[in-house]
Amino acid sequence: MIDARLDLKRRERLGMVEAVWGEHKTAEQIITILERFSAADELGLVTRVSPEKADAVLAALPAVKAHAHARCLTLGELPAPPPGPPPVAVLSGGSSDRSVVAEATLALSCHGIAVDPLMDVGVAGLHRLLDQLPRLESAVVLIACAGMEGALPTVLAGLVPQPIIGVPVSVGYGISQGGRTALEGMLASCAPGLTVVNIDNGYGAAMAALRMLRNR
Amino acid sequence: MIDARLDLKRRERLGMVEAVWGEHKTAEQIITILERFSAADELGLVTRVSPEKADAVLAALPAVKAHAHARCLTLGELPAPPPGPPPVAVLSGGSSDRSVVAEATLALSCHGIAVDPLMDVGVAGLHRLLDQLPRLESAVVLIACAGMEGALPTVLAGLVPQPIIGVPVSVGYGISQGGRTALEGMLASCAPGLTVVNIDNGYGAAMAALRMLRNR
Amino acid sequence: MIDARLDLKRRERLGMVEAVWGEHKTAEQIITILERFSAADELGLVTRVSPEKADAVLAALPAVKAHAHARCLTLGELPAPPPGPPPVAVLSGGSSDRSVVAEATLALSCHGIAVDPLMDVGVAGLHRLLDQLPRLESAVVLIACAGMEGALPTVLAGLVPQPIIGVPVSVGYGISQGGRTALEGMLASCAPGLTVVNIDNGYGAAMAALRMLRNR
Amino acid sequence: MIDARLDLKRRERLGMVEAVWGEHKTAEQIITILERFSAADELGLVTRVSPEKADAVLAALPAVKAHAHARCLTLGELPAPPPGPPPVAVLSGGSSDRSVVAEATLALSCHGIAVDPLMDVGVAGLHRLLDQLPRLESAVVLIACAGMEGALPTVLAGLVPQPIIGVPVSVGYGISQGGRTALEGMLASCAPGLTVVNIDNGYGAAMAALRMLRNR
Amino acid sequence: MIDARLDLKRRERLGMVEAVWGEHKTAEQIITILERFSAADELGLVTRVSPEKADAVLAALPAVKAHAHARCLTLGELPAPPPGPPPVAVLSGGSSDRSVVAEATLALSCHGIAVDPLMDVGVAGLHRLLDQLPRLESAVVLIACAGMEGALPTVLAGLVPQPIIGVPVSVGYGISQGGRTALEGMLASCAPGLTVVNIDNGYGAAMAALRMLRNR
Amino acid sequence: MIDARLDLKRRERLGMVEAVWGEHKTAEQIITILERFSAADELGLVTRVSPEKADAVLAALPAVKAHAHARCLTLGELPAPPPGPPPVAVLSGGSSDRSVVAEATLALSCHGIAVDPLMDVGVAGLHRLLDQLPRLESAVVLIACAGMEGALPTVLAGLVPQPIIGVPVSVGYGISQGGRTALEGMLASCAPGLTVVNIDNGYGAAMAALRMLRNR
Amino acid sequence: MIDARLDLKRRERLGMVEAVWGEHKTAEQIITILERFSAADELGLVTRVSPEKADAVLAALPAVKAHAHARCLTLGELPAPPPGPPPVAVLSGGSSDRSVVAEATLALSCHGIAVDPLMDVGVAGLHRLLDQLPRLESAVVLIACAGMEGALPTVLAGLVPQPIIGVPVSVGYGISQGGRTALEGMLASCAPGLTVVNIDNGYGAAMAALRMLRNR
Amino acid sequence: MIDARLDLKRRERLGMVEAVWGEHKTAEQIITILERFSAADELGLVTRVSPEKADAVLAALPAVKAHAHARCLTLGELPAPPPGPPPVAVLSGGSSDRSVVAEATLALSCHGIAVDPLMDVGVAGLHRLLDQLPRLESAVVLIACAGMEGALPTVLAGLVPQPIIGVPVSVGYGISQGGRTALEGMLASCAPGLTVVNIDNGYGAAMAALRMLRNR
Repeated sequence: MIDARLDLKRRERLGMVEAVWGEHKTAEQIITILERFSAADELGLVTRVSPEKADAVLAALPAVKAHAHARCLTLGELPAPPPGPPPVAVLSGGSSDRSVVAEATLALSCHGIAVDPLMDVGVAGLHRLLDQLPRLESAVVLIACAGMEGALPTVLAGLVPQPIIGVPVSVGYGISQGGRTALEGMLASCAPGLTVVNIDNGYGAAMAALRMLRNR
Repeated sequence: MIDARLDLKRRERLGMVEAVWGEHKTAEQIITILERFSAADELGLVTRVSPEKADAVLAALPAVKAHAHARCLTLGELPAPPPGPPPVAVLSGGSSDRSVVAEATLALSCHGIAVDPLMDVGVAGLHRLLDQLPRLESAVVLIACAGMEGALPTVLAGLVPQPIIGVPVSVGYGISQGGRTALEGMLASCAPGLTVVNIDNGYGAAMAALRMLRNR
Repeated sequence: MIDARLDLKRRERLGMVEAVWGEHKTAEQIITILERFSAADELGLVTRVSPEKADAVLAALPAVKAHAHARCLTLGELPAPPPGPPPVAVLSGGSSDRSVVAEATLALSCHGIAVDPLMDVGVAGLHRLLDQLPRLESAVVLIACAGMEGALPTVLAGLVPQPIIGVPVSVGYGISQGGRTALEGMLASCAPGLTVVNIDNGYGAAMAALRMLRNR
Repeated sequence: MIDARLDLKRRERLGMVEAVWGEHKTAEQIITILERFSAADELGLVTRVSPEKADAVLAALPAVKAHAHARCLTLGELPAPPPGPPPVAVLSGGSSDRSVVAEATLALSCHGIAVDPLMDVGVAGLHRLLDQLPRLESAVVLIACAGMEGALPTVLAGLVPQPIIGVPVSVGYGISQGGRTALEGMLASCAPGLTVVNIDNGYGAAMAALRMLRNR
Repeated sequence: MIDARLDLKRRERLGMVEAVWGEHKTAEQIITILERFSAADELGLVTRVSPEKADAVLAALPAVKAHAHARCLTLGELPAPPPGPPPVAVLSGGSSDRSVVAEATLALSCHGIAVDPLMDVGVAGLHRLLDQLPRLESAVVLIACAGMEGALPTVLAGLVPQPIIGVPVSVGYGISQGGRTALEGMLASCAPGLTVVNIDNGYGAAMAALRMLRNR
Repeated sequence: MIDARLDLKRRERLGMVEAVWGEHKTAEQIITILERFSAADELGLVTRVSPEKADAVLAALPAVKAHAHARCLTLGELPAPPPGPPPVAVLSGGSSDRSVVAEATLALSCHGIAVDPLMDVGVAGLHRLLDQLPRLESAVVLIACAGMEGALPTVLAGLVPQPIIGVPVSVGYGISQGGRTALEGMLASCAPGLTVVNIDNGYGAAMAALRMLRNR
Repeated sequence: MIDARLDLKRRERLGMVEAVWGEHKTAEQIITILERFSAADELGLVTRVSPEKADAVLAALPAVKAHAHARCLTLGELPAPPPGPPPVAVLSGGSSDRSVVAEATLALSCHGIAVDPLMDVGVAGLHRLLDQLPRLESAVVLIACAGMEGALPTVLAGLVPQPIIGVPVSVGYGISQGGRTALEGMLASCAPGLTVVNIDNGYGAAMAALRMLRNR
Repeated sequence: MIDARLDLKRRERLGMVEAVWGEHKTAEQIITILERFSAADELGLVTRVSPEKADAVLAALPAVKAHAHARCLTLGELPAPPPGPPPVAVLSGGSSDRSVVAEATLALSCHGIAVDPLMDVGVAGLHRLLDQLPRLESAVVLIACAGMEGALPTVLAGLVPQPIIGVPVSVGYGISQGGRTALEGMLASCAPGLTVVNIDNGYGAAMAALRMLRNR
């Protein structure tokens, strides 16, 4: 069986670092891929890596950096963000959404983009969100992560005029288990101009923000 | 085939007027049932009656009163509500929810309970809801109707301490068509102590409020 | 990443103890949060804590109390309920529903409210429920937990006039696995005025009962 | 395109009258089929025929008999049932289930089997069912039809020892629209030994009863 | 919390041994229940017991008998079946359905009813089923278990006139994972008079057969 | 808004006549498209055209031929099939599947391929299928259409070695309404090497057969 | 019942024209709302208006303009777009998606934004899309509409670096009926940085594009 | 309980090696079955065998060969493929699909058919697929495996005229978890003549290809 064919022209075509989805790959596959990135002098990013798999990769490639909260690996130096306020704000309904927030933040860092994080601004205690509105003014794009009923992006999209990317998070139980209720709530939102990515897709939200930031 | 067996002891057992669900019944069936209520000297309430069916019933029983917004029929005099502020507030996300609001309001009227209606207080324009909060203080129970993503009851339940009954409404399209997204969003709510009834079930929300008002 | 932002004003606004959902949090996160509750002199309640996680928290904070059946932790003294018959009855279809019953009972205890438990009153042996009806008369609110087809709250709501909160339970297999059949059966109930919360949401049912008890 | 190939040996093999499902057939197709039954000297039964289609068939074949409640057509004489109490009881939760009850009753009549109908014995008014229990003692098989949450067969199966066939009915709205909630509730039933047929499948329930009656 | 309330009158009312569903109960709960059966001199049957739980129960109650294939426990002597051919045939599409077949067989044995098992008669090799048809003639009731697309009961119901109980089995993958496709295929069957129970519900199928055998 | 961009190179690339899906197009759009086909001297095929729309198109373009059973329109002469036995057999479970069979047959005719139709060979009367097996020997590809539980292709694939394309048909009610049960049953089939197309997709099955016939 | 409460401050807060969702409103409600817009000197946009409802509104308010393809009404003059190439490209898989494309285009026009439309660039004839790539270079944001399997936005997002908003369209049949397959395909996309809105939500896609264009 | 009844006549009837689905069978059952194959001098293939189960089988039957990537076992010598280019091409969207590709490849090898594998030709980097088109010309049948949104077979079916079998793969997360989105996308494909098998069904795709290759 032939080996993985990396899309190393992606940076040229889309301006994006090639990211590798680690969930269904073995540690051996990931090591081979990272070595190839390294040979091509490309920054490598691997998402959805379990702690056990991360340990196995680090044992083979000590230059790899593991990001525990984000469940990601990187190989190569992350570019320093330019000075100035962070262009992306990442909001989150509860501290259970932490790994999705971390994945989005790291994926943006791989492209030299800084993030302003606002955790625990869920709509069940609305004042926590309303108190932070002024802080959002300098953000160019907002990424709003929420599980359960997923109402945070809806409320946000009624309050501020910037682009908002909703990220449903798979925290919840019963009817909301797996994040589908949050996803459908965001898609059904009565607030105008909210866009959505797949459940837990912090990386995808980051890449969508990257596309939007190019417009500046 | 034997005729419908009315549960005329319901008032005695549950303190509720017997209501008849008109959707799958013919005009002839409804007429027979209303005549029986009348003979038993009971107030009769029929829900989910199409305009055509309502006309057919009124032609046969001119004493029946049709309530167009609520899509209901009543036969017999509604009890006058006692003086004082209405004990139930009914909130609605958009004017498309009107028929559900009307059904709940009428069902409470059949039991002598007045309603304070707050329409168009959807969460996409949050100030419209926040402006009305003081008005809600005198309500004993709140019924919150919403379609689309159904976030209104969630936001409300984070703001006020009274019992809140969420009523998902079947307005929406695409993913939210039929009201299921609103229903699941309310059940998944991150706000504590919100309870929910079936989609478009204005009558059920009213009866739940009636049960709660008994506690006073 | 900034820390969890507790909603310590919740007691003031809603009259509810702040509860923390432990399922997606690490033991470390739970410990930090409980320490903060303690510092604010607030009673702390953590729900959905696995036995392993509970052990880790107790090792760090010996003052924490673990409630095994309810899968919860508390820190601080529970208020003593006032004398008199318990205002809330909690009914359950089978002994497999025990942990949901225990969560609801504990959440009410955190607010000084006593519970009368009626276990194993499922509808497949109807006499077990009918025998207990007189005992329900003094209850102000009823919480009815059921898995499988979830018919208990429906039968109950046809028999007694008090508010009834249906809690679907995720016991079942095949078509009823995960509790969705019980949930939908309760929402579709032909009995008037039944309200429902999310699957296994004992805490939510307790908070709904708390809101209703305020009306007295 | 070749014509419909009737399974005229069905009576010999299974002891059942060949029934034709009329829903997706044109009046012309139904007429052709009935003529062929007639030529073969077989009793013909066509189910799920709309009033308009029935009229078109009757205009061409005046010997056909239309059964309005059951939405069926028959051609040929129905066998007279033997004397004695009806071996099958058909129960129904509400008068909206009438057409399913009528289809089951007619299908049994085509095989010379009489039916004892018990309408409006839904579980929201339990006494209506409990009052009728003695009447059920002589039934060999029970067919229980219910829409909404579909709890009737579950309650019944806990009370009597005979075979019970649950028929979910497509009356309901919101979550219970189309009968799926009733179906799943019956399958998930906590009562032992209940079997189920497809939604609205009165004919299928009758044929299942016929198979069971053969055992005598 | 009060203890499990056994329905020991079930044998009197329904003629069935009380069975306990072991899946969501602890070994301790099962031990307590079996002791109570024993004290009441009743045969005890516990279904859905994992091997680990079975070992724990046997360690405490050595008189208990574990049935590994059926994943069940019994306490007390099983009644001997009367002489003559087994009145129930249990058919199965593939050897992966073994545990469901075993559960049905054991549940019938608890009531003194013998079973004729026909394994591996799936419809992908139709001759295996057609070859066995004569053997089925003496069966009074047939239980047909099948996973995947679940076509076995449909084909069977077109061939023989006895009552057939379809049991969908949760073997399958992709679209058929969990048994839902088999269940829906059986409910949708074009063969007349097939009835169905919940996925993997061998016990329920046995109790349905028991109800039907009473008719003789 | 620019006009429809026809893919007139499709015949060159794929060897297929360009077909137009008529369901969501107006009569005006269809007329414009057919005129363009005509101008390019290409055979035109429009599928899923309602009788009303067909009439409107024929009024404008009398050279168009309407195929009522197939709900299709063609413009231009269909190629004559070569002599010899038809290479494709189309089987159908019941006469309600007629329009899907007709669409597949017409789409093959547009490519000069003849069809051998076998209607009413559903598995509830298995002998009707077994009787026809010898006739199937000369077919190169089989298309098997079935609604309800959709077991026909499964049984067939266990009996004959040729390629079999399963076409689920949207006839059915209750659980099988819309054809999804038939679809899932075919995908879950225990018979090896069955492939499936979308519900009611007679055209797609024909094009799949066309691809397979090229191999000869 | 109080009247609809328009959110006339929306333009100030979000820079968006207030749009009214016409689907569940009567012509009378729409007329009242448009009169209020007019009185406030605001441009009015009503979406999802059936032809019959549009006629009724135009009869009462002749100044209203009906947009047939977009199924929308406007009252007031649309702002002229600035000179230069259109900043938004709207792509569509097939001409059946026309009304969604038209709704998005009109909603952008209401804000003075011009659109470059590319119809019929579906992925089944890939060259039609590849041929148009150079034309896309000047677009700042791309809106890609597709029904069926919805692959167009995925392919596009692998080819160009701008922000792409996927709009699933409710054209399709069988498994893809209602647009859910297209929606889920877009959310599951393997191409990085694609965002999605609700099915048929041309208006929402336009408002999302508007938010993104602000960044320039 | 009687033993598994192998369908050893399958080779004669269908020209296929009998394959055993190992997922729900114990190592003991697999050993017994393989011994029987061996006794009948038939090549044995067992699919979906976990590494642990494979080890247990190999310990008992050292002649068995384990295929780790394909998760399969074989007993007996695989036939050598005839000379010439491989008649089947197997394409895959990403290296996470490896085990499905390997299962299809092995199943074809068991019948002496060689495979040309094209890995990592997913549509997010379209040039990787377009570059390989010439290589596909000699393939008689194409098997296209894809997870996530599953667009690969759709794009392929618009480019080449051969038969294409789509195999949805259960890699994905959130909305695409379990492969259902890929499956539905393939069924809904706008490209003509694509056929589909169950999720992860590499074996089934191979058997479908085998049926098609017979036509040559």
